[in-house]
Amino acid sequence: MHVIKVRSREREEMIEITDEVRRRLKESAAREEEGVCVLFVQHTTAGLTVNENADPDVQSDMLHALRTLVPQHGMDFRHNEENSDAHIKTSLTGTSVTVPFQNGELLLGRWQGIFLCEFDGGRERQVVMTIIEEKGKG
Amino acid sequence: MHVIKVRSREREEMIEITDEVRRRLKESAAREEEGVCVLFVQHTTAGLTVNENADPDVQSDMLHALRTLVPQHGMDFRHNEENSDAHIKTSLTGTSVTVPFQNGELLLGRWQGIFLCEFDGGRERQVVMTIIEEKGKG
Amino acid sequence: MHVIKVRSREREEMIEITDEVRRRLKESAAREEEGVCVLFVQHTTAGLTVNENADPDVQSDMLHALRTLVPQHGMDFRHNEENSDAHIKTSLTGTSVTVPFQNGELLLGRWQGIFLCEFDGGRERQVVMTIIEEKGKG
Repeated sequence: MHVIKVRSREREEMIEITDEVRRRLKESAAREEEGVCVLFVQHTTAGLTVNENADPDVQSDMLHALRTLVPQHGMDFRHNEENSDAHIKTSLTGTSVTVPFQNGELLLGRWQGIFLCEFDGGRERQVVMTIIEEKGKG
Repeated sequence: MHVIKVRSREREEMIEITDEVRRRLKESAAREEEGVCVLFVQHTTAGLTVNENADPDVQSDMLHALRTLVPQHGMDFRHNEENSDAHIKTSLTGTSVTVPFQNGELLLGRWQGIFLCEFDGGRERQVVMTIIEEKGKG
Repeated sequence: MHVIKVRSREREEMIEITDEVRRRLKESAAREEEGVCVLFVQHTTAGLTVNENADPDVQSDMLHALRTLVPQHGMDFRHNEENSDAHIKTSLTGTSVTVPFQNGELLLGRWQGIFLCEFDGGRERQVVMTIIEEKGKG
């Protein structure tokens, strides 16, 4: 089990953590091993997602669309911390991602990266990483 | 493998199941064991999510926002059971959540709880819970 | 580990892969074994979801609602491939689904099927399937 710490600067931000996950997987997973890597964010106003890491416009378009769907103000939210939008976006993206691996390498597609989605930053965030072996392997 | 039964009363409701998951994990997971707990809801009009369990306004704001995004009526849905909105909300929140554990304890963040999201109740709902060990442990 | 190939024809399409997953699980999982089957789509403009497979109107209502929430044009997206909507829908549905199994059978509810959600087809898509055993089993 690993804990990955992420520092956000903006209220809303997509922060790629693929390299960090890759590095820790290499440390832990033996050669010829197969399985899945589970990432879980321990917060209620930040999510995790897998999406394109080539063009940063994809990330800003994603935040823009989520902001359009669930604006911070104007939806008559009752929670008095003015971050209900962030809680909702967290449930829309989800708090965990599961990515398969083989021979110590994440089996991500060519354009895929793993992102922490900050919806109420800047803050220190924590992601728990668990490595699970496929049956009959390792 | 465990089956958790949940009874909803309202058409839309967030029902916390954290304590039930915690109790069953304690029964099953040995000390010093690490891994992930996978919850899966066996329905198409109820989802699962992890979000804040301190202020109940977060839960009502979430249901309110989802209802605003995907209203039950007025979107020209063709499915004739008048619950297409519930099916769509289920895919937006997702049908499973995966939470890491260590020493028999869920590694939830301070404000996180696990919720069944009822979108077409009241009904009897069923959640399957599977406990998976991390590699090289237990 | 299995790779499931899926061919989409339309720009937006829900393609059921339950039978293919079921068949491969039967090949791989021993009797009396329990665990979870993890599916992961290796793309950034196609998602995975579990939803109703009885009435095809549910699937078209889902695509219709997502298209209404995040239209391809008119949201001032900056990514210049005209498929930002597809990236966003992918993060809303998610890139993986996790389904429990027992005795070689998926523990899906009566109305549940597993779908690849194509948001920018037609294309060849690839889904990685990993079978994970529950602790103390197999």
